[in-house]
Amino acid sequence: MHSFHFVVSIVVLLLTRGWGAAQVPLPTWNEGAARQAIFDFVAKVTEKGSPSFVPIADRIAVFDNDGTLWPEQPMYVQLSFALDRVKTLAPQHPEWKDHEPFASLLKGDMKAVLAEGERALAEIVMATHAGMTTEEFDRIVSDWITTARHPKSGKLYTEMVYLPMLELLSYLRNNGFKTFIVSGGGIEFMRPWALRVYGIPPEQIIGSSIKTRYERRNDRPVIVRLPELNFVDDKSGKPLGIQQHIGRRPIAAFGNSDGDFEMLEWTTSGNGTRFGLIVHHTDADREWAYDRQSSVGRLDKALDQAKSRGWNLVDMKHDWKIIYRVE
Amino acid sequence: MHSFHFVVSIVVLLLTRGWGAAQVPLPTWNEGAARQAIFDFVAKVTEKGSPSFVPIADRIAVFDNDGTLWPEQPMYVQLSFALDRVKTLAPQHPEWKDHEPFASLLKGDMKAVLAEGERALAEIVMATHAGMTTEEFDRIVSDWITTARHPKSGKLYTEMVYLPMLELLSYLRNNGFKTFIVSGGGIEFMRPWALRVYGIPPEQIIGSSIKTRYERRNDRPVIVRLPELNFVDDKSGKPLGIQQHIGRRPIAAFGNSDGDFEMLEWTTSGNGTRFGLIVHHTDADREWAYDRQSSVGRLDKALDQAKSRGWNLVDMKHDWKIIYRVE
Repeated sequence: MHSFHFVVSIVVLLLTRGWGAAQVPLPTWNEGAARQAIFDFVAKVTEKGSPSFVPIADRIAVFDNDGTLWPEQPMYVQLSFALDRVKTLAPQHPEWKDHEPFASLLKGDMKAVLAEGERALAEIVMATHAGMTTEEFDRIVSDWITTARHPKSGKLYTEMVYLPMLELLSYLRNNGFKTFIVSGGGIEFMRPWALRVYGIPPEQIIGSSIKTRYERRNDRPVIVRLPELNFVDDKSGKPLGIQQHIGRRPIAAFGNSDGDFEMLEWTTSGNGTRFGLIVHHTDADREWAYDRQSSVGRLDKALDQAKSRGWNLVDMKHDWKIIYRVE
Repeated sequence: MHSFHFVVSIVVLLLTRGWGAAQVPLPTWNEGAARQAIFDFVAKVTEKGSPSFVPIADRIAVFDNDGTLWPEQPMYVQLSFALDRVKTLAPQHPEWKDHEPFASLLKGDMKAVLAEGERALAEIVMATHAGMTTEEFDRIVSDWITTARHPKSGKLYTEMVYLPMLELLSYLRNNGFKTFIVSGGGIEFMRPWALRVYGIPPEQIIGSSIKTRYERRNDRPVIVRLPELNFVDDKSGKPLGIQQHIGRRPIAAFGNSDGDFEMLEWTTSGNGTRFGLIVHHTDADREWAYDRQSSVGRLDKALDQAKSRGWNLVDMKHDWKIIYRVE
């Protein structure tokens, strides 16, 4: 019976931990406070019998996307998508030549586009994100994301997701966590590629959305995307999106800007062991360095309160050996 | 090495199939077309190498709740909750004595309440479902559901969930399916007990909702429930709720009324192997018998089209040996 138990133990170990369990987790994280805080938190919530133990069902971790899992500079990836889409659709819209913000955009004058303000951006988003079915939009995004390249690096956007964060997602999942994205970006803009790139299935993606309608086209039922805002999953919208989709409070939250403040606050003010982490963009050479003064991904209030609230800071320049999935 | 492989095989078998795998699935279902259709569908999508095989990630099954997983007669359980709640709150609302529909309700005159129409019901729902935080509402529902009893049977409502459907939920999950509830009922009314009773976690519950607001109360962040409709997850709302929460089309749908028509249609009109099933309430002795003429859970259009659309019918009287979880 001795050998039986031995074999059972080995098999159980292999089945539950995988063959590569010997590798130390988070290999592209430098030793330091951030990495150690992650290890300590995971050890606490997974230690059976400990008062800090959290059952697997409650191990919910939420991740912002833009600036937390991939870059948001010089502009949000989804905005690049919308701009490309206007150019693609322009031949079908001759009226855009005389109509702002499309006229400036098509002339390449982004400064003039941005000067038109939020209403103009909303018009661009609706013109490029609404009118088609959900299945058509899925195809449009899938096609774009597999070919479009970042203006600075020349890489595919999905090659620029942060390798240390991919390791963190895997590490948490290997420890029984269910990982969710909670982004201000469009929910249907992330779903077509998030499973392949992040290992996160569509039902674990939360984001902003437009309204939809169920109807028949060519005698088949379809869901049509309407040019009307449904939900903004940013700032105080993030806890509401979490409650609507997940229905329980996460125990760990990961963000990078003041847009994540309420998500971090909601997550870390629950009872028991909690974890908050902010990715601080400090690496002007390998990525970008920005915080309080940036119009994209401004990090100000959350940076001020990180220490008093016990939120951990990742210093990208010093904490990460490698930045991108594909260097 | 022979004994090593033997032991490994046994351990793998035990770990993957469970100790009770020898039992035939769906034991409280009588042999018949409905049970056979379920077996055939599951065999088809799980047979590796077959053209009808569906990867585990895409094995999404959606279940209506009222009338599909538990009774909806003589009125929706959530309406009983709302009525009980009005009685509980009445001492704090002396003005209700002179204000309809509360006055009639408190006198026990349900006929007069219902005569006031939908606006009156909405007023009752908002008075009992809004104003508190999400955590308070969770506690209120949890307390009620563990004590309130069905007027006819005297059982707890959760004792009246249909045993054959519990077996079906387990059977699908054992075959790699992810099971979701997609109900016209309130999303936060189901979440407090659905994991315990159905084995379905909060993040896999989709339902109707009211708007919410993130704010601070007693220096702690809370999510407050507002007396304003957010989303009605019924009829053509069901495919939209599915898209919003799950982000992909299910391959199996289970309902019982015309309120499930579009969910069944959306699910079964996708490509590949699909499954639709309608629970037909045919058992006046053990449960209730109703369909085309019922104001609650009317089944008319979906019954007419079931055959042409290939949707399976469960005849509760003949297909189910036992109805309730607790007889």
